[in-house]
Amino acid sequence: MGDVAQRLAEIVGESHLLTGDGIPEDYSGDEALTGTPTTPRYVVKPATAEEVAAVLTTASDHRIPVTARGSGTGLSAAAQPHPDGILVSFERMNAVLEIDTVNHVAVVQPGVTLSELDEKTASSGLGYTVYPGEMSASVGGNVGTNAGGMRAVKYGVTRNNVLGLQAVLPTGEIIRTGGKIVKTSTGYDLTQLIIGSEGTLALATEVIVKLHPRLRHGATVLAPFSDLDRVMAAVPAIVSSGLAPHILEYIDALTMAAITYNADLALGIPDEVRDASQAYLVVGLENRDAERLGGDTAELGELLTGLGAADVYVLEGTAARKLIEAREKAFWTAKSAGADDVIDVVVPRSAMPEFLSRSRELATKTESGVVGCGHAGDGNVHLAIFQKDKEKRASLLHDVFALGMELGGVISGEHGIGRAKKERFVELEDPAKVALLRRLKQAFDPAGILNPGVLFD
Amino acid sequence: MGDVAQRLAEIVGESHLLTGDGIPEDYSGDEALTGTPTTPRYVVKPATAEEVAAVLTTASDHRIPVTARGSGTGLSAAAQPHPDGILVSFERMNAVLEIDTVNHVAVVQPGVTLSELDEKTASSGLGYTVYPGEMSASVGGNVGTNAGGMRAVKYGVTRNNVLGLQAVLPTGEIIRTGGKIVKTSTGYDLTQLIIGSEGTLALATEVIVKLHPRLRHGATVLAPFSDLDRVMAAVPAIVSSGLAPHILEYIDALTMAAITYNADLALGIPDEVRDASQAYLVVGLENRDAERLGGDTAELGELLTGLGAADVYVLEGTAARKLIEAREKAFWTAKSAGADDVIDVVVPRSAMPEFLSRSRELATKTESGVVGCGHAGDGNVHLAIFQKDKEKRASLLHDVFALGMELGGVISGEHGIGRAKKERFVELEDPAKVALLRRLKQAFDPAGILNPGVLFD
Ligand SMILES: Cc1cc2nc3c(=O)[nH]c(=O)nc-3n(C[C@H](O)[C@H](O)[C@H](O)COP(=O)(O)OP(=O)(O)OC[C@H]3O[C@@H](n4cnc5c(N)ncnc54)[C@H](O)[C@@H]3O)c2cc1C
Ligand SMILES: Cc1cc2nc3c(=O)[nH]c(=O)nc-3n(C[C@H](O)[C@H](O)[C@H](O)COP(=O)(O)OP(=O)(O)OC[C@H]3O[C@@H](n4cnc5c(N)ncnc54)[C@H](O)[C@@H]3O)c2cc1C
Repeated sequence: MGDVAQRLAEIVGESHLLTGDGIPEDYSGDEALTGTPTTPRYVVKPATAEEVAAVLTTASDHRIPVTARGSGTGLSAAAQPHPDGILVSFERMNAVLEIDTVNHVAVVQPGVTLSELDEKTASSGLGYTVYPGEMSASVGGNVGTNAGGMRAVKYGVTRNNVLGLQAVLPTGEIIRTGGKIVKTSTGYDLTQLIIGSEGTLALATEVIVKLHPRLRHGATVLAPFSDLDRVMAAVPAIVSSGLAPHILEYIDALTMAAITYNADLALGIPDEVRDASQAYLVVGLENRDAERLGGDTAELGELLTGLGAADVYVLEGTAARKLIEAREKAFWTAKSAGADDVIDVVVPRSAMPEFLSRSRELATKTESGVVGCGHAGDGNVHLAIFQKDKEKRASLLHDVFALGMELGGVISGEHGIGRAKKERFVELEDPAKVALLRRLKQAFDPAGILNPGVLFD
Repeated sequence: MGDVAQRLAEIVGESHLLTGDGIPEDYSGDEALTGTPTTPRYVVKPATAEEVAAVLTTASDHRIPVTARGSGTGLSAAAQPHPDGILVSFERMNAVLEIDTVNHVAVVQPGVTLSELDEKTASSGLGYTVYPGEMSASVGGNVGTNAGGMRAVKYGVTRNNVLGLQAVLPTGEIIRTGGKIVKTSTGYDLTQLIIGSEGTLALATEVIVKLHPRLRHGATVLAPFSDLDRVMAAVPAIVSSGLAPHILEYIDALTMAAITYNADLALGIPDEVRDASQAYLVVGLENRDAERLGGDTAELGELLTGLGAADVYVLEGTAARKLIEAREKAFWTAKSAGADDVIDVVVPRSAMPEFLSRSRELATKTESGVVGCGHAGDGNVHLAIFQKDKEKRASLLHDVFALGMELGGVISGEHGIGRAKKERFVELEDPAKVALLRRLKQAFDPAGILNPGVLFD
């Protein structure tokens, strides 16, 4: 056992250090379709912030790259370790430390998964509202990517739902940021800076998340539209209506066919309506009062009809749940259909029609396919890209990202840049900004040990 | 005219440069009670981001301190200029550039005041929801301090309502961050980092703010309580209720007497109730539907009674407006009553009773007075401090801040640290965090020209 391995074993305990052939394949990356599975030199499973700090100090001393891993469900290859590096897996730091029903917060360790947190908060009547499609994702991973998901249209993304952190700096100090407080004007906001930094600035060892009351009554409304532009134009009107949907998704016809087929889900839409539909809106409403929900649902139905929906279906319990689940699994459906990449550009809501139609033109020009769905309420378009040729794909992605930026958007709304999109990011982003980000990185991580190769080289 | 003055005159135009005796007193500071009015060497009034960039480059070349000024209504002496420095007043950059009703955003120049923005957005049915008590404050100043105000309990603070910036770096580059988009996972969040940095990292030259639908129907409910603890205990219950008040303020009896006297406001509370009341809650509800508002108001009344309110008054139009205005003016009332400082510690909502009672003990021990009101829904306590002796006051502030931090809070919830609280901040805050903040400052501002002496030396 080398020096480093011995030191790591001392820190986390021998049984929580994996090396060489003892490292299962699962640790070699995340779910990014374009990742390059890479086995790290060491996997450590710390149990405390102090252990994490000692690991980082050791890594710093030996200039060893360190990658944090939550559940490895990320889509930007940001949890893909360095071949000479240490992978810090937070799987043992998975306790829900406190559910504080007075301040409406939970204090959790980063390895807690969203489904565990959901389960543990259920009886309190409160819940964590960040719902990326994958409930096995961890809260620490959410912090790493600034995860969004379907309910962001009402509740915001991770950034809006994390009030404080305990974090370990690459220089080995353990700090606390924010707290069980909803606001602060006391120095630069380190909580916000660390959120979305993809494990490159600091490692979160405790997270204080907001909880919201679970509203008892919900309705899911499905509306087919004859063309995509009309769907897109309907979105701002629904956002403006004051109905405050907690789900506002669009699904194009191909994606809908695929996900409902895979889920063996019959939505009861007559063939002639389905055949004439280019896209669908899925709108979720919720309320603490059943009667008000009824009123809102009726109002939404009228609004959708006025906006050109071919029909409006209020889905009942099981069908509603299944449709949402099928939508959550859209990524797997795209993957099994042979998609070569999945991207998540975000643009101003008003720019979605132009973004989609011009993306399709770009795809046609390069003989590629793009189909998709997305968090329409957020202007966040998830496109599955079909193009086997690597160079053609890179050039298409460049053009699609550039288009998104031209329309006032950014490359990623919630998945992050990671390793997967860093070339495009550095190429397209303002050099003055990239230089500033590099200086910020340097301010946190002078030795450059945290997730090198992610975001930029 | 010296070299620097000449260059500045070239940049902004001679008539927009003030020097020496030509500088009105108003530019010598903000509203902080403990500020030291200081006349800067130069006041410039740029009209464009390019002019701001040129000013910063000049300042950089000559290592001249630069302080940004919005409306000078800040309460932490952060807009107090350096005697050898340049004050950049944004008064001429006060255009509302765009009101985008599709994406629900406004694009504004930083010098726009909140009342101007309110006026200009009124006809769109949308509005900017950051409402610090002082509507002459500017949006740029809001960004500088991460301003909060009464409606933060529902709509969040500046941080939650700014989606993007155009900003000038002290190194002279003009960058854009964020956009008309509700989320991004594309590099570190510079928007969030600049918000609340009190003019020490970059100067905002354009701000993209969220707009929310103006809800047509509102009600203001006033509830006297026999003791302060009970008021504080009622707050989390109201937050949990699902009634989602947009105002949730507490006002102690002394403050209520003073502000209603100053506003010549009769609330119709019988003498015997008033005499037996130690504190009041003011709760604002709003709804797009009059009937729902009525239902909610009735429910709130029952809830308040159940929580121990001595009585519940639903205030009508003028009385309601006057009470809110009087509350907004609490700072002026405290000032004219001879308060020596006003602070705004934020603690977890659950900790407010302990924070208040122990603060009063600390005050009694040092023969000081503390009275106050605050954004109770946010755990943000505004205390007016009466203690003429500077040393005694400093020691009291130290102890009160330390108490807030011990209870899980921070020194300032919305006013900022500025010059006024920096000694206490550096003394009480974790040195590892302060060192990191200094490195971040250095990453933005290697020459140290932006607002030196604010936050830390
Ligand atoms: C089917 C499917 C659907 C999805 N749908 C969505 C969606 O709707 N919205 C969405 O936003 N995402 C979605 N995702 C992506 C993914 O679930 C999220 O990115 C999630 O936040 C990743 O969590 P994780 O625990 O798996 O993180 P990982 O993949 O393990 O790591 C993600 C990043 O966070 C860093 N990290 C992990 N732990 C920490 C820590 N403790 N401190 C600091 N950094 C850390 C890692 O280094 C890495 O940079 C989906 C993924 C799948 C497979
Ligand atoms: C009666 C009264 C009541 C108040 N109530 C509240 C309240 O309820 N909530 C609350 O949060 N505040 C309150 N305040 C404080 C104040 O209104 C806010 O802090 C407000 O945000 C200051 O805006 P301003 O334009 O006056 O900023 P200034 O005082 O001019 O500047 C404030 C800070 O912002 C910086 N700054 C200004 N412009 C820019 C720019 N373009 N780019 C970068 N930095 C910039 C300055 O350098 C300084 O650090 C109150 C003040 C008064 C007098």
